Amino acid sequence: MERTLIADTVKKVGEKVKIAGSVHVVRAHGKIAFADITDRSGVLQVVGGDDLVELKPQYFVEIEGTVNARPPQMANDKIKTGSVELSAEKVTILSKSDEMPFDMGAEVLNLELPTLLDYRTLTLRHPKIKGIFEVQSAIVEGFRKFAGELGCTEIFIPTISASATEGGAEVFEVDYYGHKAFMTQSPQLYKQMLVPVFERVFTIAKAYRAEPSVTTRHLSEVTQMDCELGFVDFDGLMDALEFVATGILSHVEEKQGNVLEDYDIPKLKLPAKIPRLTMREAQKIILKRTGVDHTKEKDLDPEDEKEISKWALEEKESDLVTITHFPTKKRSFYTMPDPDDPEFSLSYDLLFRGLEILSGSQRVNDYGKLVDAIKERGMDPKNFEMYLQSFKYGMPQEGGFSFGLERITMKLLNLSNVREASLFPRDMERVDFRFSR
Amino acid sequence: MERTLIADTVKKVGEKVKIAGSVHVVRAHGKIAFADITDRSGVLQVVGGDDLVELKPQYFVEIEGTVNARPPQMANDKIKTGSVELSAEKVTILSKSDEMPFDMGAEVLNLELPTLLDYRTLTLRHPKIKGIFEVQSAIVEGFRKFAGELGCTEIFIPTISASATEGGAEVFEVDYYGHKAFMTQSPQLYKQMLVPVFERVFTIAKAYRAEPSVTTRHLSEVTQMDCELGFVDFDGLMDALEFVATGILSHVEEKQGNVLEDYDIPKLKLPAKIPRLTMREAQKIILKRTGVDHTKEKDLDPEDEKEISKWALEEKESDLVTITHFPTKKRSFYTMPDPDDPEFSLSYDLLFRGLEILSGSQRVNDYGKLVDAIKERGMDPKNFEMYLQSFKYGMPQEGGFSFGLERITMKLLNLSNVREASLFPRDMERVDFRFSR
Repeated sequence: MERTLIADTVKKVGEKVKIAGSVHVVRAHGKIAFADITDRSGVLQVVGGDDLVELKPQYFVEIEGTVNARPPQMANDKIKTGSVELSAEKVTILSKSDEMPFDMGAEVLNLELPTLLDYRTLTLRHPKIKGIFEVQSAIVEGFRKFAGELGCTEIFIPTISASATEGGAEVFEVDYYGHKAFMTQSPQLYKQMLVPVFERVFTIAKAYRAEPSVTTRHLSEVTQMDCELGFVDFDGLMDALEFVATGILSHVEEKQGNVLEDYDIPKLKLPAKIPRLTMREAQKIILKRTGVDHTKEKDLDPEDEKEISKWALEEKESDLVTITHFPTKKRSFYTMPDPDDPEFSLSYDLLFRGLEILSGSQRVNDYGKLVDAIKERGMDPKNFEMYLQSFKYGMPQEGGFSFGLERITMKLLNLSNVREASLFPRDMERVDFRFSR
Repeated sequence: MERTLIADTVKKVGEKVKIAGSVHVVRAHGKIAFADITDRSGVLQVVGGDDLVELKPQYFVEIEGTVNARPPQMANDKIKTGSVELSAEKVTILSKSDEMPFDMGAEVLNLELPTLLDYRTLTLRHPKIKGIFEVQSAIVEGFRKFAGELGCTEIFIPTISASATEGGAEVFEVDYYGHKAFMTQSPQLYKQMLVPVFERVFTIAKAYRAEPSVTTRHLSEVTQMDCELGFVDFDGLMDALEFVATGILSHVEEKQGNVLEDYDIPKLKLPAKIPRLTMREAQKIILKRTGVDHTKEKDLDPEDEKEISKWALEEKESDLVTITHFPTKKRSFYTMPDPDDPEFSLSYDLLFRGLEILSGSQRVNDYGKLVDAIKERGMDPKNFEMYLQSFKYGMPQEGGFSFGLERITMKLLNLSNVREASLFPRDMERVDFRFSR
């Protein structure tokens, strides 16, 4: 008998079918037992006798039986197959499992983070945790869709680099055939080099930061979603990033709305016009709203980000707010200073519900100015030779932006730690297992 | 004036427009000059006077002017805009370029590989080389489309690992906060761990091999396109891989047929039924066709792969042929031995026009057998603890496959070296620039 996907059983009432999946929970009531079986399409209640009682969570099984309509008062409208159940006639165990170290049948796995990660291959199977990565997959799908609509070509760029991408010490060193090499800190320089080739590019790329600190919002290995666009001015860049950001969020709400509901996430507020503020304007609003005077600070701190997002929601009915004109010295060397006030730069961050999920800028596209900017930061242009080559042979006005995949996932589902938003998170304490074990 | 994309000029005959792009070539004929201007949408002939003569290849420019129909005898039906030209009225140079080190206007850049790579940011701008990566982008798009149709969820997996993925010495070591870590040799183990979570997964992932040799078909950093499917038997796995492979190739022919033509690539031959041979059957066919007796060999060598692809084309009108049942000892530890003849395995390679572009197998999904297989290879199960955890908690029958992105790109365009199929190739001699310089 051919396998039937669980989602298709609702169309087969009265028919014999074979399903295959994993056992989520088993409940025995005297001689009768119920098992929830999960496959990639959904979850189904199976009714049976001793055959089912034998089953334990995470066993993989094939079950043949008849699809029956449930009596209306027994229907479960929370799941797609809630109107039917399978009456088991033949149960085949394909693969057994060790005893569960915790209750996988609980609606929420209330585990401390270290346990959640120590048992990562198991905790990921929990429906609520699995939902995080269904949302993540939809975020990336949305990114590609809207970056594609901007006319970007997808590029694949290297992660092994001859020098530290943007300077700084937070870089992983690789023994590369006896030579010193580094894991790229971002796809930044390579995507810029490709603007003269494709004009507009996007990439989904790994980035590595040897952050020697443990925070709730940093990982050592992250996934970035980057765009870089030629012949676009500062306003055009903001239009583009807001188009993609709004697109991503709407796409997730459309495709994975059930997971968002499961996480009690309010409906998204994405107005046609995303509010834009300079950093200085944002600081003034914060002063007015809270009395806290950060108007001399060189950046927004996490509390500022939360407050200005609150303002955007209350005053502009927007979950997004774009902050521009960060101090030139606080941004990377390739950031274009504002010609009207070079102390500040043509840069932006996008805040989503209080967290920065995107960063970017218009870039310095003049070879000489770029060499000067590198030197001013105390770096050696020789370490940027391939990058500089692309400016020597012509580079139009250009800029771009970069989304942090794990960050958006974290914020969208209101997770308390970015580690929960990575299938197998890497930080200074852990590569799958903790080093200290 | 708003910018008009070059491809849209054909709809604006008689109108004033502004275009922006890079100068491909300039040809001066006395007082009149022609420049080919390129943007992301295409290339356009611009006619003008002194303003154009000033321009040099790889200058980035804005040009305002009037779109005119070309006289029919002057039309160029090789390009989309061949029926029109732009009569320049105002030329603005946005960015200048150094003198070209070679003729970027030539139809083919006849450069030695080292030069091609030393000037990578420039050579990529050549239309014929750029085409390679337009094809590559379409390959990945096709992969995602057809992996998606199989019901796979996209996953993002780590590239930093605590141990060498599949054993062997060809692994890059990373200094990870003072601990020893490695760049993953493939996404293999992680995608398997996620089968009990999502049942079917796909990933586009980086893989690293510290190959201490220089060949025309190996890179140190590659992009893999992987699928892994639960509840699928050996025949089902081959159906799936042939579905995806055929889908990718057809997608490229549909989307980038002009690049294939530019590379003189014959039309693809993709029959509904891709021929399948065991390795032993393939060796017998080779013996019969060529007299070369490799029937005792444990693998197909490159010449064998070419010969059996020739057979597939001549006898089955197919550019693809699936070879199965490689010796168990020649494949990785997770490969399922054939229960009917355990010396051979439930493994497969897919050959495309003489080159292996995919490899995979049904997997050992029993915890005890997997531990034994690891030990038999002289490896320590402790180094596979997270991987083995997923088998302890239940794993259905499963298997998968992996395409090499650069390899397919190389073979599809008949490039002589896989380095030409990577934007910024990494090998033992080079990270952007050669180490020996």
